[in-house]
Amino acid sequence: MKLSIRNQLQGTVAQVEVGGVMAVVKVTLSGGDQVVASITKDAAEDLGLETGSAVTVLVKSTEVSLAVE
Amino acid sequence: MKLSIRNQLQGTVAQVEVGGVMAVVKVTLSGGDQVVASITKDAAEDLGLETGSAVTVLVKSTEVSLAVE
Amino acid sequence: MKLSIRNQLQGTVAQVEVGGVMAVVKVTLSGGDQVVASITKDAAEDLGLETGSAVTVLVKSTEVSLAVE
Amino acid sequence: MKLSIRNQLQGTVAQVEVGGVMAVVKVTLSGGDQVVASITKDAAEDLGLETGSAVTVLVKSTEVSLAVE
Amino acid sequence: MKLSIRNQLQGTVAQVEVGGVMAVVKVTLSGGDQVVASITKDAAEDLGLETGSAVTVLVKSTEVSLAVE
Amino acid sequence: MKLSIRNQLQGTVAQVEVGGVMAVVKVTLSGGDQVVASITKDAAEDLGLETGSAVTVLVKSTEVSLAVE
Repeated sequence: MKLSIRNQLQGTVAQVEVGGVMAVVKVTLSGGDQVVASITKDAAEDLGLETGSAVTVLVKSTEVSLAVE
Repeated sequence: MKLSIRNQLQGTVAQVEVGGVMAVVKVTLSGGDQVVASITKDAAEDLGLETGSAVTVLVKSTEVSLAVE
Repeated sequence: MKLSIRNQLQGTVAQVEVGGVMAVVKVTLSGGDQVVASITKDAAEDLGLETGSAVTVLVKSTEVSLAVE
Repeated sequence: MKLSIRNQLQGTVAQVEVGGVMAVVKVTLSGGDQVVASITKDAAEDLGLETGSAVTVLVKSTEVSLAVE
Repeated sequence: MKLSIRNQLQGTVAQVEVGGVMAVVKVTLSGGDQVVASITKDAAEDLGLETGSAVTVLVKSTEVSLAVE
Repeated sequence: MKLSIRNQLQGTVAQVEVGGVMAVVKVTLSGGDQVVASITKDAAEDLGLETGSAVTVLVKSTEVSLAVE
């Protein structure tokens, strides 16, 4: 499957926190940066996410902002 | 200024493409990955973005999806 | 590849309009509804989108709003 | 009221799950597809959403991604 | 029509800039703040937006970030 | 720090509701309007948000929709 989503970064799940209907997943990118994803609890379970899972982080380019000092 | 935006990654602008009202900016993260941002042309100009500019990539956690093989 | 993205709908590209850096793609879902996607021109080209292309429409659940009469 | 939101699909609520501050609502589109929306608990209550409610699913075109096989 | 979208602010269109497929619309809120919306060119035309048009600005709560000094 | 994010509105926190992993923050803008933000619980804690906190509301222009009567 090929996605229109421009940003696809490889990483490993560092932590999964589950709430009532949402989950917050922390991912360590292969480059060392950390990324946080807020997804549904259902999605976290369907993907079987747990510490150490290899994942691809996906972000649509229209969702990316930039800052300069 | 401290932001609620969870994902803040350091990088350098690799390319700025400007359209009628939007701009697409390619950023090389310090970890080596490449990220693409679709922002307004006005924003790209206000920030003075050009190849080599140091930038911080910002992504709200609710905009991040994950994939597993 | 399995995605955390909850909404995955099958459809066929009905029209691709390309601007300076963005593209607007109209998709007819298998159920008959029409969906519009604003993606980068680069993404439209990389996926080789043209009228008649079979595509999956992807929408993260945090991006979906609801209305009642 | 006329909305700039390009994607407006008719459906019926199939399930409402409520968490601490968020709610996940499953909607069956008239075309048969299922769509999931993550909205605030307050919004779900204000709209009086329950199984069987007729709803319109709203998605801004900049939030729609595409995939090809 | 009642929307799950939490943020609905009254304003008046101050400027419409149209690109190839997108449009950038500047709105002055009744409270005096200015807001910018990036929507499709089609949406701007369908709504007949022009300087002076009365509009409601809509933003889903999951799209709002906060900053503190 | 200068942000590409077009919409930056000054306000004061009116209420913070915390769920399992998410938080819903209500902000009264200086112009009098009210805005709701759904952010992670971690972000609300990191920013030390509480009733009366001075905040800037941030919204990327691609996340803003418009409606006309």
